[in-house]
Amino acid sequence: MPDSLEALIEALRQLPGVGAKSAARMAYHLLQHDRDGAQRLADALMAAVRNIRHCERCHTFSEQPICSTCADPARDQTRLCVVETPSDQAVLERTGAYDGLYFVLQGRISPLDGVGIAELGLAELMVRASDGVIEEVIVATSFTAEGEATAHIISQALAKRGIRATRLARGVPIGGELEYVDLGTIAHALADRH
Amino acid sequence: MPDSLEALIEALRQLPGVGAKSAARMAYHLLQHDRDGAQRLADALMAAVRNIRHCERCHTFSEQPICSTCADPARDQTRLCVVETPSDQAVLERTGAYDGLYFVLQGRISPLDGVGIAELGLAELMVRASDGVIEEVIVATSFTAEGEATAHIISQALAKRGIRATRLARGVPIGGELEYVDLGTIAHALADRH
Ligand SMILES: [Zn+2]
Ligand SMILES: [Zn+2]
Repeated sequence: MPDSLEALIEALRQLPGVGAKSAARMAYHLLQHDRDGAQRLADALMAAVRNIRHCERCHTFSEQPICSTCADPARDQTRLCVVETPSDQAVLERTGAYDGLYFVLQGRISPLDGVGIAELGLAELMVRASDGVIEEVIVATSFTAEGEATAHIISQALAKRGIRATRLARGVPIGGELEYVDLGTIAHALADRH
Repeated sequence: MPDSLEALIEALRQLPGVGAKSAARMAYHLLQHDRDGAQRLADALMAAVRNIRHCERCHTFSEQPICSTCADPARDQTRLCVVETPSDQAVLERTGAYDGLYFVLQGRISPLDGVGIAELGLAELMVRASDGVIEEVIVATSFTAEGEATAHIISQALAKRGIRATRLARGVPIGGELEYVDLGTIAHALADRH
């Protein structure tokens, strides 16, 4: 197998959910049938790496220093929803049931990987939530063990500062990740937050 | 969602077997956790598109005008194995049971897509097989309706030129239990018993 084909398969295999066989199938497909697509994907990857940074206020993906959600005066400035990832934020946005602001953590705590609450941006969250405008922080981390632990630590830190923290109602299945939950359930859980 | 993120998800979604959700998960993963991996994938794509061409003798992927298999004097020059794709060639190589040469078609006939035998490289195959050295052409196209039709046309064209064509044996896979093998395969294995 040519070196550059082997290197391409190896690079594709690093994508989440892609094994050796799928990576080979993708590489063969691109080279045999879609070289324009391969070039477009390369361009899109470089443009994304070059242009996409984290919003300075909420840490979601943004091409501007402040993202369009944070910069939108029509959003409810008194509510802040804490999520684990930009894709969890996207799921909440798609429900259409929330019009406040967001704070995106850098994942969830994972003691085995040495990821504690500090690495997730707890200090930045406390500064953000203490701006005097925020009245409620909705902690929408997942209902996995790590997500619950993360929520617990965040709620305690907010309580110490006298900021009200709520959690999505348990309409979300236990062990469920937001990304895989249907939108209606998420909308209900948002309405029933406590 | 930022434009360049949307463009990246769209480009990833063009990969075979990747839907909208997987594409989003891949894009988020790369931007959040593996920007080096994103850059490596972009580089690998561009290098592959730039360096990989088709071998002038067998049409498989190669960085040289003639691939390393065709250029290998230790291979049996009298046998030519016709496959549908470079990945089928890779599968045959991994068996270690074949030491002849290859000819890689550009897929298989697909009347609905307007892909006939001419588009697959039949003329080039006839020139290649008529070099006076080849004694046997093993037609290893798949055992689908399209693969069988392709094999039939190739075998007829070879017969006209007095070149011997063979086909892989059909039968029960090694380790296969009759209960789980389709009836057509069993019927063939019964007819081809030896
Ligand atoms: Zn923002
Ligand atoms: Zn070759």
